[in-house]
Amino acid sequence: MSRLPIALTLGDPAGIGPEVAARVAADPPDTVKPVLVGRAVDLAIAAERTGLSLGTLERSFVACDPGERVRPGCDSAEGGKAAHAAVVRAVELARSQAVAGITTAPISKRSLAMAGLPFAGHTELLGQLAGVKTPRMVFVVENQRVALLTTHIPLREVANLVTQPQVAAAIRDLNRALIEEFGEQNAPIRVAALNPHLGEGGVLGTEERDAIAPAIKETRAEGLRVSGPVRPEDLFVSLGATAVEGVLALYHDQALGPLKGRHGLNMVNVTIGLPFVRTSPDHGTAYDIVGSPAVSDHGMRLATEWAARLWNLRQGNCEDRL
Amino acid sequence: MSRLPIALTLGDPAGIGPEVAARVAADPPDTVKPVLVGRAVDLAIAAERTGLSLGTLERSFVACDPGERVRPGCDSAEGGKAAHAAVVRAVELARSQAVAGITTAPISKRSLAMAGLPFAGHTELLGQLAGVKTPRMVFVVENQRVALLTTHIPLREVANLVTQPQVAAAIRDLNRALIEEFGEQNAPIRVAALNPHLGEGGVLGTEERDAIAPAIKETRAEGLRVSGPVRPEDLFVSLGATAVEGVLALYHDQALGPLKGRHGLNMVNVTIGLPFVRTSPDHGTAYDIVGSPAVSDHGMRLATEWAARLWNLRQGNCEDRL
Repeated sequence: MSRLPIALTLGDPAGIGPEVAARVAADPPDTVKPVLVGRAVDLAIAAERTGLSLGTLERSFVACDPGERVRPGCDSAEGGKAAHAAVVRAVELARSQAVAGITTAPISKRSLAMAGLPFAGHTELLGQLAGVKTPRMVFVVENQRVALLTTHIPLREVANLVTQPQVAAAIRDLNRALIEEFGEQNAPIRVAALNPHLGEGGVLGTEERDAIAPAIKETRAEGLRVSGPVRPEDLFVSLGATAVEGVLALYHDQALGPLKGRHGLNMVNVTIGLPFVRTSPDHGTAYDIVGSPAVSDHGMRLATEWAARLWNLRQGNCEDRL
Repeated sequence: MSRLPIALTLGDPAGIGPEVAARVAADPPDTVKPVLVGRAVDLAIAAERTGLSLGTLERSFVACDPGERVRPGCDSAEGGKAAHAAVVRAVELARSQAVAGITTAPISKRSLAMAGLPFAGHTELLGQLAGVKTPRMVFVVENQRVALLTTHIPLREVANLVTQPQVAAAIRDLNRALIEEFGEQNAPIRVAALNPHLGEGGVLGTEERDAIAPAIKETRAEGLRVSGPVRPEDLFVSLGATAVEGVLALYHDQALGPLKGRHGLNMVNVTIGLPFVRTSPDHGTAYDIVGSPAVSDHGMRLATEWAARLWNLRQGNCEDRL
């Protein structure tokens, strides 16, 4: 099996991105040929923090515009600009098929904002760069592919976005991605409820009755294998299932609360709906442990492995349809 | 060690309550002397469903007013009345110290409503019977004692109840219960955040800044060991901690989502703030498996064991203060 070139962005240089990317580049999964993407000054930082040879790292490096060193553990406009430039360059590489996919190291929303780049996160930035309106975040963990209806919004706004059209659109997006991006031709999808006890017939909330159940009915009528609404506390109970299933969670912590405690760094984020493969580890810049032995590159490594796997699944799938 | 008398209500007779209570009564934990409480007709049902001797079960039985058989798996006014009567009787036993505590089998809110008894659940019913305004539900699991700020309300109403006075009151209630009911003189309390990423400085929600952090500050000033707000996804990450800690979660699924998937029936519900001990298993009437081999009495057994333990902790604690 040949190695697939995967772009690893260095992320915000004030965080752990450069060091985890460099470590994975020095010791990649069997399926991955790493291509580091970022500023030369940040690659040098990565070499310093990891003790890896800068010369070796440079052999698999695509450099962005130069810039200045940033202070570790601190948000800055310079850090935001650096993180943004690496993503832009990686997207160019992916779109020209110089790489098979992108794995992004963590960025800081505040650094981006300080640089005048007001993106809520990678998902929104990648959507804009790719000209895609509704890219979606999906968590890959064990046999589950978990999409979110809403992501980075206040909890008080969640219920207003749980409408029949929105839920139905998310079900369709997840179903399409399961087939076209994850290579699963017949995976079922379970949809979460919003309220305790499924709204208890309307007493504890009406969204199950008025939005979620109708959206499930609507997409089932289109032939999709959809079920629910499922009690939030039953959504991630492991039933020993091994077949892949899709899960639609309705808000950030409905998925992250149960998943993060159980799976930690074994979870990979995938953006679905893009014309190229993009994965990331499920952790942030971790400013408080930059350069320390507590930094783990496990999540980043797993994310690059998944990037290669997803590229293969997309290819296999295309061939199937020829 | 002598066995403590614990009242086991039969719950709604249409559900699995009678059979799990009977099974525990037939084979109780070492510390428990079971006292079954319910209608004779439902005890007979329990004997039929479990194959246990009715004569034996009757030896540890306190009978409520007679009534008619209900249809298994169906809500009914008769079932609601039966469930209610057993709780009323058990509370009398507890208040007269004929039992050391109560463990309740599951009831159906709809059956209660059909019987003209509009209680959201045991917690509200027990609060009324005991004349306590704000009894609170606490989940006991491993080293954590998890209280909820809000319980059975629609998700869209949660944020409006996250106010500084409400959060501070819940912290104080939990702290008092940790000391007086759980026998923990110095357990710390962690308080959950409401929004993704702690509200990200207000962009993703203001409750952390305007209500939760001020409530933590207020109660810390009173000498309580309180910290937070904690990211919801980090609330239940096991850190290998063994010392008991309190956790204040803000809504039903913020706690149940992560906990239920990991701990299943190993979780016990405790009502704090009552003048007597009350526990229950963390499952419902399970109408769909009534009388089947899939019914487990593990949760009910664990709940009776905790009832005995909590009575001892209350006594030990009282002696400490004499």
